[in-house]
Amino acid sequence: MKKNLVIQSDFGLADGAVSAMYGVALSVDEDLSIYDLTHEIPQYDIWEASYRLIQTVGYWPSGTVFVSVVDPGVGSDRRSIVAKTINGQYIVTPDNGTLTHVKRMLGIDGVRIIDESINRLPNSGESYTFHGRDVYVYTAARLAAGIIDFEGVGPETGVDTITELEIVDASEQKGSVSGTVDVLDVRFGSLWTNIPRRLFMDLGIGHGGRVEVTIENGKRVVYKNILTYTRSFADVNVGEALVYVNSLDCMAVAINQGSFSKAYNIGTGTEWKISIRKAPKIIYE
Amino acid sequence: MKKNLVIQSDFGLADGAVSAMYGVALSVDEDLSIYDLTHEIPQYDIWEASYRLIQTVGYWPSGTVFVSVVDPGVGSDRRSIVAKTINGQYIVTPDNGTLTHVKRMLGIDGVRIIDESINRLPNSGESYTFHGRDVYVYTAARLAAGIIDFEGVGPETGVDTITELEIVDASEQKGSVSGTVDVLDVRFGSLWTNIPRRLFMDLGIGHGGRVEVTIENGKRVVYKNILTYTRSFADVNVGEALVYVNSLDCMAVAINQGSFSKAYNIGTGTEWKISIRKAPKIIYE
Amino acid sequence: MKKNLVIQSDFGLADGAVSAMYGVALSVDEDLSIYDLTHEIPQYDIWEASYRLIQTVGYWPSGTVFVSVVDPGVGSDRRSIVAKTINGQYIVTPDNGTLTHVKRMLGIDGVRIIDESINRLPNSGESYTFHGRDVYVYTAARLAAGIIDFEGVGPETGVDTITELEIVDASEQKGSVSGTVDVLDVRFGSLWTNIPRRLFMDLGIGHGGRVEVTIENGKRVVYKNILTYTRSFADVNVGEALVYVNSLDCMAVAINQGSFSKAYNIGTGTEWKISIRKAPKIIYE
Repeated sequence: MKKNLVIQSDFGLADGAVSAMYGVALSVDEDLSIYDLTHEIPQYDIWEASYRLIQTVGYWPSGTVFVSVVDPGVGSDRRSIVAKTINGQYIVTPDNGTLTHVKRMLGIDGVRIIDESINRLPNSGESYTFHGRDVYVYTAARLAAGIIDFEGVGPETGVDTITELEIVDASEQKGSVSGTVDVLDVRFGSLWTNIPRRLFMDLGIGHGGRVEVTIENGKRVVYKNILTYTRSFADVNVGEALVYVNSLDCMAVAINQGSFSKAYNIGTGTEWKISIRKAPKIIYE
Repeated sequence: MKKNLVIQSDFGLADGAVSAMYGVALSVDEDLSIYDLTHEIPQYDIWEASYRLIQTVGYWPSGTVFVSVVDPGVGSDRRSIVAKTINGQYIVTPDNGTLTHVKRMLGIDGVRIIDESINRLPNSGESYTFHGRDVYVYTAARLAAGIIDFEGVGPETGVDTITELEIVDASEQKGSVSGTVDVLDVRFGSLWTNIPRRLFMDLGIGHGGRVEVTIENGKRVVYKNILTYTRSFADVNVGEALVYVNSLDCMAVAINQGSFSKAYNIGTGTEWKISIRKAPKIIYE
Repeated sequence: MKKNLVIQSDFGLADGAVSAMYGVALSVDEDLSIYDLTHEIPQYDIWEASYRLIQTVGYWPSGTVFVSVVDPGVGSDRRSIVAKTINGQYIVTPDNGTLTHVKRMLGIDGVRIIDESINRLPNSGESYTFHGRDVYVYTAARLAAGIIDFEGVGPETGVDTITELEIVDASEQKGSVSGTVDVLDVRFGSLWTNIPRRLFMDLGIGHGGRVEVTIENGKRVVYKNILTYTRSFADVNVGEALVYVNSLDCMAVAINQGSFSKAYNIGTGTEWKISIRKAPKIIYE
């Protein structure tokens, strides 16, 4: 079986940090296959780190070891952990909320705390600022290589003890579904919501149907308009907005060949609420 | 033989889209070797996608499978195809003009339409916006892995049926060669033209010779000046402009350690015409 | 043994240049494992290329072949060389100062000049602007693959003949250590100095101790303040500045979850001097 290691961070690729992590992993076992998830997580943005994991983990083979290093608390007493998902993958990360979406939407089987007396790059003792290289990738490489097994990571802890970020659940009331704008499809400016397709389906609206979309930031209405619910971008005109099912099977809003988030200055997070309902019938008399 | 898969897109690397494609490919066959061409094609820019393919395909081993996902028409009835090049490589792409340069400058042997009833990621049915993951990479991985052969892609279609972008050919008249500014050497701001070195050679100008370069945008002359034709950047002063043969064996214009495109606001496309002739002899009396 | 090739350049990843280099390397030997150091070195910035090498080389396995292509003199008579480091790695690069830090801080065992009559991609004769593809990666791939050994690169030259950039050494005087701001931790805006931890230790200041930091650009004092010397970022408040030991075992200055370089407009290079001393005791009477 191939030994896959997939690395995510907020380091960017402009300096040597990511390459040093690759070197450490290959020094542990030259037969590892190493891949990038992304290194462009906005600095310290644990929420986005959590989201990018749930966006990708399910598409990788069982046994893959992921490392996520978005770590505003490096050097604090936040724990360093390894989670085993229900489909047999591992995620090595600081215990700071990075596992929020994977725990809720995929499922975690067990968690172990990294014992740094064993799982720390030899001779890295005097620097305390690059745990990604000295602890996380080193431990992940040893796990992927089979040098240690899950027990060898360190002591067990309860799945219920790990840190989680607040999540507002999507809900349905009076013919309307509501949720939050979770994240952007960065380069295209589409809004990805936490409203599952199945919840939206309850409204009984088919492809081509008209829906009213309302977006609020706190108490302020930022956008309210009637759009078409379509299968894909090409079903509307270039420059026209649409509602569709995104590649995570949730509802999303976009402008065909434009950027919805830039057009209306929409951000992400629990302060950004979105609701979708069947468009009211307008009768001209 | 190694099974090489090379992926190009306009997705950027900031979110999880590219990593999800990697995961899908490795789930098809864990022994694939996967590489990036680039993921920074400007959004929806089919011309640049076509150009980046011709810039690189020829340097990769025979048998390599390329995937290009620049797909403004995702979800429309544009066809999804696989082209076999005359040197035994494969390119998996929407049929939207992405193969323009490869067809003209390298050559295509055969084309097949992807049969999505066979070649589509299982359980991806309800999302219609990420064909890169669900159709293109999945099909490419199966082809690279030998799970399907070229016939297994789907029904054959004529090479002459594929969509091509308009190309203006370079030409020679009265001691002058003319063409278009096809693309930029992005980070360095050099202009890459479609004027082949061999055509320029007909003018009988050797290294060190002086040439007059005229650049027009539509009817407007944007640049007209006399430069030296040199072997390389270091043959002129820092900050001096030059004419040279680029790494695709075509004529190019640059500023040594500066950006020609930024200096004179030069863009790319068939509207941007360039002509090069022997510099007129200036006699001061 | 795995045959690792690690590539650094100032090409960026937006066009096909890096991918063409990958293709050339795999055409030499399909079993090479190819990795990126970074391709975002600022254009022509030899100093930063040199620094990124010393930041990473030591973490990679012995036998790894590095290629660095930051080459403002492409096409000039600058030599193309391969250096063998004292830990058995190879670096293929133009002889323009790129080896400055590796020579001083790691050590070079031997240097050979690339004989382009042997080590040049066949049929690449008419373009003189992409030595990264035609000479450097081609030679590096042949070396990594064992097609040539170190002698096969070309004639030997003295380690003392290679080009070096000027470096100002860190120094200690009257209870103060001084040096230069060598480079930024790009994405986080931390200042990395050339003051080794061991030199700073001579001041007898422990974790939690207060230090006075002065930063000068030429004659101008740009920053002067009293900070805490801590193990890591989390030992100070969010938004507070700190002095710490970076991942290269040198002294560094940062703002916890902020950007020190942006906050005070600090740049890098020998013009940017920094000194650190024990904070004076302030007695209020």
